Amino acid sequence: MRTAQQYVDKLKSMRPNVYRDGKIVPRDDSQIMPGINVISTTFNAIQQADLKDLAVVTSHLTGEPINRFAHIHQNKDDLLAKQEMTRVLCQKVGGCIQRCMGVDALNALSVVTKEIDEKHGTEYYERFLAYLEYYQQNDLVGNCAQTDVKGDRSKRPHQQQDPDLYLRVVEKRKDGIVVRGAKAHNTVAPYADEILVVPTRALAPEDADWAVAFAIPADTEGVKLLIRSTAVRPRVRLQAPVAEIGMSDSLTIFDNVFVPWERVFMCGEWEYGGRLAALFATYHRHSYTGCKPGIADVIMGAAALVAEYNGISKAQHVRDKIADLIAVAELVYSGGIAASVKCHQASSGTCIPNTVYTNVARYHAGTHLYHEYETLADLAGGLIATLPPEADWYNPETQELLEKYIMRNPNISAENQHRCFRMISDLLCSSWGGVQQVAGLHGGGSPIMEKIAITQQYDLDLKKDIAKYLAGIKA
Amino acid sequence: MRTAQQYVDKLKSMRPNVYRDGKIVPRDDSQIMPGINVISTTFNAIQQADLKDLAVVTSHLTGEPINRFAHIHQNKDDLLAKQEMTRVLCQKVGGCIQRCMGVDALNALSVVTKEIDEKHGTEYYERFLAYLEYYQQNDLVGNCAQTDVKGDRSKRPHQQQDPDLYLRVVEKRKDGIVVRGAKAHNTVAPYADEILVVPTRALAPEDADWAVAFAIPADTEGVKLLIRSTAVRPRVRLQAPVAEIGMSDSLTIFDNVFVPWERVFMCGEWEYGGRLAALFATYHRHSYTGCKPGIADVIMGAAALVAEYNGISKAQHVRDKIADLIAVAELVYSGGIAASVKCHQASSGTCIPNTVYTNVARYHAGTHLYHEYETLADLAGGLIATLPPEADWYNPETQELLEKYIMRNPNISAENQHRCFRMISDLLCSSWGGVQQVAGLHGGGSPIMEKIAITQQYDLDLKKDIAKYLAGIKA
Amino acid sequence: MRTAQQYVDKLKSMRPNVYRDGKIVPRDDSQIMPGINVISTTFNAIQQADLKDLAVVTSHLTGEPINRFAHIHQNKDDLLAKQEMTRVLCQKVGGCIQRCMGVDALNALSVVTKEIDEKHGTEYYERFLAYLEYYQQNDLVGNCAQTDVKGDRSKRPHQQQDPDLYLRVVEKRKDGIVVRGAKAHNTVAPYADEILVVPTRALAPEDADWAVAFAIPADTEGVKLLIRSTAVRPRVRLQAPVAEIGMSDSLTIFDNVFVPWERVFMCGEWEYGGRLAALFATYHRHSYTGCKPGIADVIMGAAALVAEYNGISKAQHVRDKIADLIAVAELVYSGGIAASVKCHQASSGTCIPNTVYTNVARYHAGTHLYHEYETLADLAGGLIATLPPEADWYNPETQELLEKYIMRNPNISAENQHRCFRMISDLLCSSWGGVQQVAGLHGGGSPIMEKIAITQQYDLDLKKDIAKYLAGIKA
Amino acid sequence: MRTAQQYVDKLKSMRPNVYRDGKIVPRDDSQIMPGINVISTTFNAIQQADLKDLAVVTSHLTGEPINRFAHIHQNKDDLLAKQEMTRVLCQKVGGCIQRCMGVDALNALSVVTKEIDEKHGTEYYERFLAYLEYYQQNDLVGNCAQTDVKGDRSKRPHQQQDPDLYLRVVEKRKDGIVVRGAKAHNTVAPYADEILVVPTRALAPEDADWAVAFAIPADTEGVKLLIRSTAVRPRVRLQAPVAEIGMSDSLTIFDNVFVPWERVFMCGEWEYGGRLAALFATYHRHSYTGCKPGIADVIMGAAALVAEYNGISKAQHVRDKIADLIAVAELVYSGGIAASVKCHQASSGTCIPNTVYTNVARYHAGTHLYHEYETLADLAGGLIATLPPEADWYNPETQELLEKYIMRNPNISAENQHRCFRMISDLLCSSWGGVQQVAGLHGGGSPIMEKIAITQQYDLDLKKDIAKYLAGIKA
Repeated sequence: MRTAQQYVDKLKSMRPNVYRDGKIVPRDDSQIMPGINVISTTFNAIQQADLKDLAVVTSHLTGEPINRFAHIHQNKDDLLAKQEMTRVLCQKVGGCIQRCMGVDALNALSVVTKEIDEKHGTEYYERFLAYLEYYQQNDLVGNCAQTDVKGDRSKRPHQQQDPDLYLRVVEKRKDGIVVRGAKAHNTVAPYADEILVVPTRALAPEDADWAVAFAIPADTEGVKLLIRSTAVRPRVRLQAPVAEIGMSDSLTIFDNVFVPWERVFMCGEWEYGGRLAALFATYHRHSYTGCKPGIADVIMGAAALVAEYNGISKAQHVRDKIADLIAVAELVYSGGIAASVKCHQASSGTCIPNTVYTNVARYHAGTHLYHEYETLADLAGGLIATLPPEADWYNPETQELLEKYIMRNPNISAENQHRCFRMISDLLCSSWGGVQQVAGLHGGGSPIMEKIAITQQYDLDLKKDIAKYLAGIKA
Repeated sequence: MRTAQQYVDKLKSMRPNVYRDGKIVPRDDSQIMPGINVISTTFNAIQQADLKDLAVVTSHLTGEPINRFAHIHQNKDDLLAKQEMTRVLCQKVGGCIQRCMGVDALNALSVVTKEIDEKHGTEYYERFLAYLEYYQQNDLVGNCAQTDVKGDRSKRPHQQQDPDLYLRVVEKRKDGIVVRGAKAHNTVAPYADEILVVPTRALAPEDADWAVAFAIPADTEGVKLLIRSTAVRPRVRLQAPVAEIGMSDSLTIFDNVFVPWERVFMCGEWEYGGRLAALFATYHRHSYTGCKPGIADVIMGAAALVAEYNGISKAQHVRDKIADLIAVAELVYSGGIAASVKCHQASSGTCIPNTVYTNVARYHAGTHLYHEYETLADLAGGLIATLPPEADWYNPETQELLEKYIMRNPNISAENQHRCFRMISDLLCSSWGGVQQVAGLHGGGSPIMEKIAITQQYDLDLKKDIAKYLAGIKA
Repeated sequence: MRTAQQYVDKLKSMRPNVYRDGKIVPRDDSQIMPGINVISTTFNAIQQADLKDLAVVTSHLTGEPINRFAHIHQNKDDLLAKQEMTRVLCQKVGGCIQRCMGVDALNALSVVTKEIDEKHGTEYYERFLAYLEYYQQNDLVGNCAQTDVKGDRSKRPHQQQDPDLYLRVVEKRKDGIVVRGAKAHNTVAPYADEILVVPTRALAPEDADWAVAFAIPADTEGVKLLIRSTAVRPRVRLQAPVAEIGMSDSLTIFDNVFVPWERVFMCGEWEYGGRLAALFATYHRHSYTGCKPGIADVIMGAAALVAEYNGISKAQHVRDKIADLIAVAELVYSGGIAASVKCHQASSGTCIPNTVYTNVARYHAGTHLYHEYETLADLAGGLIATLPPEADWYNPETQELLEKYIMRNPNISAENQHRCFRMISDLLCSSWGGVQQVAGLHGGGSPIMEKIAITQQYDLDLKKDIAKYLAGIKA
Repeated sequence: MRTAQQYVDKLKSMRPNVYRDGKIVPRDDSQIMPGINVISTTFNAIQQADLKDLAVVTSHLTGEPINRFAHIHQNKDDLLAKQEMTRVLCQKVGGCIQRCMGVDALNALSVVTKEIDEKHGTEYYERFLAYLEYYQQNDLVGNCAQTDVKGDRSKRPHQQQDPDLYLRVVEKRKDGIVVRGAKAHNTVAPYADEILVVPTRALAPEDADWAVAFAIPADTEGVKLLIRSTAVRPRVRLQAPVAEIGMSDSLTIFDNVFVPWERVFMCGEWEYGGRLAALFATYHRHSYTGCKPGIADVIMGAAALVAEYNGISKAQHVRDKIADLIAVAELVYSGGIAASVKCHQASSGTCIPNTVYTNVARYHAGTHLYHEYETLADLAGGLIATLPPEADWYNPETQELLEKYIMRNPNISAENQHRCFRMISDLLCSSWGGVQQVAGLHGGGSPIMEKIAITQQYDLDLKKDIAKYLAGIKA
């Protein structure tokens, strides 16, 4: 397993293909570093007493200890452990831990490559296992590029005016394939080793060229990462862990990119497009049953702390609102536990969490997140929006006045009150906060997608039969 | 294990102490029978192929097969099985299965009698085990009488103007104790074999006389059951399972009732009053994580069926609303699964479900129930409120007209459309429906009680520490 | 203007065509009387000091004083007065005042008959005015029969397998027309003088036979009223106004009914079908902006009273919930005020309330009603569902015990505590309560209908233009 | 009336006492300009055909035409006009129009100065009228500084450890008073001409020194404005109105500031502290019934536009969500209309909007705002969070690719799609968006404050009497 330093060194050595604000930047660009800090936490975890039991697991392939972010889930305990690890790490970084994308894609590929082979006699699964071993041994960080830019949402891939609006195979060669298209919302991509590409939707026979899955190094020729970086507002003096985090998302453009066959895991088997898309979504939504409670922990911790500082923690409406935050967090987490416990095993041996529980939990998380932010703002009060900038706190003309007038709880130092309000201000009133809200809503699939998944997966006829039985309706 | 017939025969033999509408009625009174029908389902279950594996379990005490409604949960699988059995049985009776009260009280007593003994050197646990063996061998039905009438809610028991407003010990004799008071909302009591009494709240030293728990036959001298029976509207010709169900609740008055010592499980140990009250509540709320999804199944089944009959099942707003019903049911069920999986074992060996997951699930169920009914009404349409009475459907002057004008889906017979609407009308527009709503809200404790339990049980300091760490606040 | 007695006497003299529970019953049947009591309130109002200024208005047609329930709204003050009168009268009867249907239909007809004449040179408006004068002078009570039974909801009237599933003209004669069909949810019909029939939806050219509006006496040959009566549970001794109220709804069957031309207000002008349907809906929804706050007043009054009796009125969560009840009531009422103030005048001079405000208010009322009931149940506690029946309170064996154990607030008599809980039990746990919930949801059009009305009426392009302007998007 | 240029020129001439990021900045600092642009809109309005009828009004004092932002409301039409003007101007600037604070404070002062004089024989009202004439004639912009920093929220002003935590009179001189303290959340203060100070809460006799109201120029000696500026992200090439707006809030410190008597409007009359605080809140919340619908117009316009660009505007779930946005906007606006129509006149002749309607409307706005943002994010999709920065759109290496892959609706140019997504990204994923959310929640008083106002103002006893009447409870 790598150290965080080894991870960063590797990033520095990569071909520069990251564009930010109109120019190419190195991967250790100052605006990318906050995201790298987050991923580094997952490397550090394997050496921390309270985390290593969650973070390190034995590879079923090699029997070697590996980082859980590279593991194929063998049983329900693996799923429970992934969920718990995700929650705990999100608490540490005050937000999304970001590395889950890779492991979620690996698990989905492990299932589907096997299934395609079983039907078509292909050899995708063998290729995948070879790739997995490489991935585990090198302790890699993977981005999963799923969401195509999609053009006209009412049309299928082959019906689009510009066929590249969904990523597709434009050429098949002896040694590999050439692909063209663009994938959106690729968190972690500018500081990932690898990009794993999977389809974004169910496909029809005419969409065969769009049925493609593969993995390539993130700096492969022809790949362009157009990124947007987000972080809390930079600080000069008031250092704190919350000020070190951030994330970069990439619009990843594949401009005629060559992929060798040993890295191709689906090519033309359109009937498995939806299956792979849905499986990645399921694994990723299951990760949300860990990360959303983790982020809820941060929000409720901040809410409880500021309520204490404001002297209102005993008020019933405050306790009610805290209880509501707890209820959201723990119901979502329950859904992930239930999904883990009620998992089933695919033909490859990989465990798949129950899709109904996974989706109801993710749906609950996604449709309550804005309200969680609202509650934090409610208990914090307006100061989070009007807090004077950090520099005023170090200006001799204003410092003393600020320290005088921020005092609320005489037992808490002015600095700590300042720290508390600045953190919440950063969480709520920054582009970081806005991006987290949108990511919490749409990440892993928008609420409407989970609703569709829920109704599709659910045995509603069984429930209608209950109603018919009670009503005395035969047949 | 008894048959349903043996259960009913025993009821008939009991001393008549049930009051209804101003007079004493026998236990097989026509208005009580719907509740008896519900309980009979739990006796029949042990012989039904699809239910017996859930309904029959091996007693840890005797090694004999017993009905699960008399079992002490030995491990998480017992808790999962109780939850699942409860859901399935509620589907069969289209509502509350009612027999859970007894098993929930037994489990709570098994824990607390042991704990009191450990502290005070008493012998309550031995007494309890003797009683449990009797209860299991006779396959009894138990009501749990917990909720005191409580008088002025801002005062403790010993502060009440009338000390009897909480049930208390008024005399201690050599052979037993005499108690006086009244317990409210005692579902099943008029058709139960036994009444198990536990305290309703935490107690202070001055409340020692109110710290009492015991079990007595429901027809014990001095016990008066003032009942209110509820059922769907009686039918003459259109028979259906939904028309056979109902429930009776009792205001149970203990008018100087003698309880022999072997039936007394707590007497004066005020510091365990809150513990026992909370434990019964926890077990009972855990039962709600099974029954509320079961009732939700009935509601969503009826909603899906009537949507199909109305020809609107493909409309997106309809599918959205069905998805919301599914989400409520399965999140609540998830909470119960998580509570079971994350249970812990008391000193008696009894397993206690996790209280946070139990309470967030029960809270979610209780605060969404009215909305579930609203959704059913929404999809069914106004006819459920204005459906002409059954007799009009058999009056030659009107029958043909009604059958002509009820037609919606030409593929469904007029009778089945009638059956569907009548069932929903009975679920929504009857005293039964109103009582189910109130019971779903308050049963096992009102939402405000669950919120209090959630905040009391939750380690909020841990979450504040996360916030402090992120903000850089030391100490 | 008539007295209540004159109104009842007239009912008694009508041809018996009301079917209940399989047989024909007279109009003063004991189960119909509760509804008659409600309507009588509107006759008594004209003599009551606090009501007569609202209830009596000058006819624009004759200059005579008339009951406002027969008035054509001439200006915004008329609309404001109708709204306020409706609220106040609903408070008096603890529910729907029921007489609004007639006045809402009259106003809609006054607009559309004029508009048809203007286009087609017909003489509907003159006929209508003659009818209106008769209606006002005889101080009549009118039911509006709008909702057809509708059969397959995905098909238009002329596409139905059975063409009678929407009411239609089956014959045109020299002296009038013959109609056949059935109208559902006709509140007040069994105790109304007149039935006013209007279409239920927009119509296509092929639907011309279904484009029909008319008014006939409720006991016209061929009309059959199949009713369902609902009231709170009958009481023997504990008399109270809430125990006197109720309502009957009719499924009204028109079995080849002859309507003379002077009573026909639309016949074949299909392009005005939707207009008339929508206008009646608008007036009726505007009435809901008065009645729903009135019913909310009853619910919040009961909630505040029982909170006082329970000793919890100072608790913050209780005050919060009461504040939420107030907010719902007054927002809905605000919507009605805004709709009145922003009304416009039709070519007939009749004032039409603003449809957007009307619909958002009705929508808000309809989607919050179940929650209002939930709040009442929440504050009242479980006793409303398990309160022993009235007779037990007069049985010497149980009376004293009941009076002892119901005591909560020592300053309130046992009888008053009983009265309070019985009223709330009747509001929540009776078929009356269930029917009120469904009526509050669907009456005047289901929420989905109001949403459609809102989006259809709203100038969304104007709002898109604002967005384009801000974004710098031209054209 | 001034021009926008005159307004800006005056700002430039003021004494520099604005602190930003650790140093003093001039009032036309680049980060303050976005807020100045917003205020300029109110000066330009008087010359725009579609706005001037709303923006210009005749002074009741001088008979001269003045800007409505300096007007004392004489009747309900003035209140309706202020509400409408506020909504329309907010649409123009895509957010808060900011100038309402001054007019709201003036109206509150007009009422209370008169009332104090009536009781105490003081001459505040005369002073106020003189000040008002000056304010109107010079067409000034006023900030209202109300919210004290408040220290320990469980203590009254005189109980605070540091008495300055509420602004107070520290010295009374012959020619005026000296005050010390700090006021928070002072939007507009760094680009206002005047600061109007009013108390923040009800006061006790011991709080007499804190009962103070006055008006001073914003650059008065001793006043320090510590500001935080917020704006959408600056743009280089893609100019648009939305990119020009912003706001600055000030923590305003009064460091022993002298106020001459002619500018003092309350000094020691503690019993009017709560009255003045509540009146300003009422006027300001009434302004919210105009601005929140205006901001909702921007959100719903953007939502409808992006739904059209995404090709999903016909989907039912999209129309449902748009309908919900409309319902929120128009219910809030209805509340303001009702509050205007049901206003009453104070002894000074000033009209005061109805407080119940005002507060329920503001409460509805405040508790739905986060959900409005959520809906916009929902319909826009994830691209708003991951849209590559503006500069990438002008980098020759990436421009063409971005324009290729942003295409959704072939009928809309890539530039316009870019414009649409960038605007929404700026509204949702920027510190501007976060500040707007917090301001929408807390501005004019947090939801809990409106709930308190609602229950305090409401005649709940009247509603209890209705319940008692229906239940048959006498006395």
